[in-house]
Amino acid sequence: MNAWDSPLGYKYATASAGFRENGRRDLALALSERPAATAALFTSNRFNAAPVRVARGLLAAGGRFRAVLFNAGQANAGTGGQGEEDCRETLRLAAAAAGLNPEEILPASTGIIGDRLNLSLWERTMPALAADLGKSSPEDFAGAIMTTDRFPKIARAEVRLAGGVARLCGMAKGAGMICPNMATMLALLLCDAEVEEDLWKRLTAEAVRLSFNRVSVDGDTSTNDTLYALANGASGVRARADEASVLQESMTEILSRLAYMLVEDGEGATKVIHVRVSGAPSDADAEKAARSIGNSQLVKTAMYGQDANWGRIIAALGRSGAEFLPEEARLAFGGLEVFRNGMSCMSEDDPALAESLKGRDIFLDLSLGGGRGSYTLLASDLTHKYIDINAEYRS
Amino acid sequence: MNAWDSPLGYKYATASAGFRENGRRDLALALSERPAATAALFTSNRFNAAPVRVARGLLAAGGRFRAVLFNAGQANAGTGGQGEEDCRETLRLAAAAAGLNPEEILPASTGIIGDRLNLSLWERTMPALAADLGKSSPEDFAGAIMTTDRFPKIARAEVRLAGGVARLCGMAKGAGMICPNMATMLALLLCDAEVEEDLWKRLTAEAVRLSFNRVSVDGDTSTNDTLYALANGASGVRARADEASVLQESMTEILSRLAYMLVEDGEGATKVIHVRVSGAPSDADAEKAARSIGNSQLVKTAMYGQDANWGRIIAALGRSGAEFLPEEARLAFGGLEVFRNGMSCMSEDDPALAESLKGRDIFLDLSLGGGRGSYTLLASDLTHKYIDINAEYRS
Repeated sequence: MNAWDSPLGYKYATASAGFRENGRRDLALALSERPAATAALFTSNRFNAAPVRVARGLLAAGGRFRAVLFNAGQANAGTGGQGEEDCRETLRLAAAAAGLNPEEILPASTGIIGDRLNLSLWERTMPALAADLGKSSPEDFAGAIMTTDRFPKIARAEVRLAGGVARLCGMAKGAGMICPNMATMLALLLCDAEVEEDLWKRLTAEAVRLSFNRVSVDGDTSTNDTLYALANGASGVRARADEASVLQESMTEILSRLAYMLVEDGEGATKVIHVRVSGAPSDADAEKAARSIGNSQLVKTAMYGQDANWGRIIAALGRSGAEFLPEEARLAFGGLEVFRNGMSCMSEDDPALAESLKGRDIFLDLSLGGGRGSYTLLASDLTHKYIDINAEYRS
Repeated sequence: MNAWDSPLGYKYATASAGFRENGRRDLALALSERPAATAALFTSNRFNAAPVRVARGLLAAGGRFRAVLFNAGQANAGTGGQGEEDCRETLRLAAAAAGLNPEEILPASTGIIGDRLNLSLWERTMPALAADLGKSSPEDFAGAIMTTDRFPKIARAEVRLAGGVARLCGMAKGAGMICPNMATMLALLLCDAEVEEDLWKRLTAEAVRLSFNRVSVDGDTSTNDTLYALANGASGVRARADEASVLQESMTEILSRLAYMLVEDGEGATKVIHVRVSGAPSDADAEKAARSIGNSQLVKTAMYGQDANWGRIIAALGRSGAEFLPEEARLAFGGLEVFRNGMSCMSEDDPALAESLKGRDIFLDLSLGGGRGSYTLLASDLTHKYIDINAEYRS
């Protein structure tokens, strides 16, 4: 991947608790040696999983955090007040095992909705988790939070600040229920710069807006979406206010790389469709158009079939609610213009078009006219495998 | 289907023009012996097919209509101004063949987007179409407008008015791009009552709102959706203003039966999912909830898998934007309550649940609380066959 070092001052622990049949590691702790400036973003879904509600409570109570505790296999969503009790109990167990107090740990869960956490499995696994602390790597952490993901998602970067070099590392899991406003997605961004907390929160929110909030696998927003970002200052490098944009850029780059992996590894996905809309009267109009196209079953299925079916894209654009003049709209596949002046301007059977759809990345460029509004959405295709996975997810 | 007679004063003609490979009948004309009160509804898609633009022009020019001309195989959409010229030429050809003038005929096309109409095929077929006038039945008409439909869609009814009995007959085609605000749907409603034109238009709009606008196969709204409704008075029975509701009921019943068939015959569909939302603060909130659930890929796929996956339904509800209190939401499958008070209240593995998902019709009842808002949406499931059809539609 890349040779950069991990952020200083963090330890990782993973264990196999047996939340999933396959014996894979499914429990992960990331611990900062010191309290860290902490930012958190959660799902926009009106149904919040228990860990989301518990975490919101902990964050509202203020205080700084030292650890995050993620589990895969059970989402602890749709479990009512009991689910919150169970979540708090897991924090107590992990705190005791890692020598923290429960208020310093933020929880996140992913997996099947509705099942209660199996607390006896948690208890039984705590000694192994404690014993592993410092032995696991960020790669192990990323691996332990996977559900239907095919590969762990991790990205690193270094950022040069006046005070020296700071390191960042991001880990995420995705696969299904991936959609605008994050996903069934758990993500962790660690940084060893010292960053003033309010600034860190602003930078994190902006980086997420520019990355995770611009991907779509199936248009379904989950109940558990959670991103935590910690900056612990262990590098001794302080990020000054006038260096915010540099740090911002690096954070956005990491989260964008993770967001790309989410789409690349979307359930059953074979394509990453880059829907790039420009020339709209506003960014909001461009976003409407991009989301309508990126979430269209017919467009996603055509891309799977490597079919230059511009008609479906134009139809999705036309029903998007975006403001534009149909006669000004233009569409290109991989730089080849196929539609303009309200009609086709290239044969759908042109071999060059077929070529532009063969690779993993497909580029759809839509120009809606002379406006300055633009938006890019990354979307996966819709495949037989997606149906396989989701028609039999629980069996 | 049923023994009711067809409306009086209409003749039908169908022919095989060769717009499609299989030699099936793909051109259909319905002719009223006298000018008829005419109502028309079109797609909300910003990209209109040429026949939609031409028809809007004819309707704006006023006058009464005597015939509709439908073709399957070529949508004449995304064909620019040339497409409108082609469409007008087909009206001239059909008018000459049927002894009408072109301004008395309303056009509609369905099929592949982007291809120009093949006018030489139209010309060559006109004698056969003229020779068939009066020989074809409404069933033949419904058969000739099919594209990927598996069966013709037709429904009849009689309505008893003070002046006597009037007859209605509806014909439609659907399959793909089926969504809110009509579908890639062509529909024709014929009635032999005499109805004042403004009243007929109001009744038609309301009947469509209560039927076709409440179905979804894939959430994609097409460029060609068209419904024409003619009332020619051939029965000699006049619908009085105070009989509007009786007539309305009958029209809604016919269109609802056709709408059900659209979902039943949705591309690859094996299920008809009845998403019934009640207890919402408003009908608009109930509709938001129903559409979010009925259009969710994950819900549709779970229903295909006969998986009582209430978590996906709750997640779709939670992101719908509908106003409600999560703790008040309740969900039942086929009358069996599975979710309330924010958590599961029945095992997903209960055999009774499995039973409720086995049939073609699946009933999802959501209560959002104590409000009076309600909405019902009919949605199809998402299947391997859907992917087969749409990944290879053009090949």
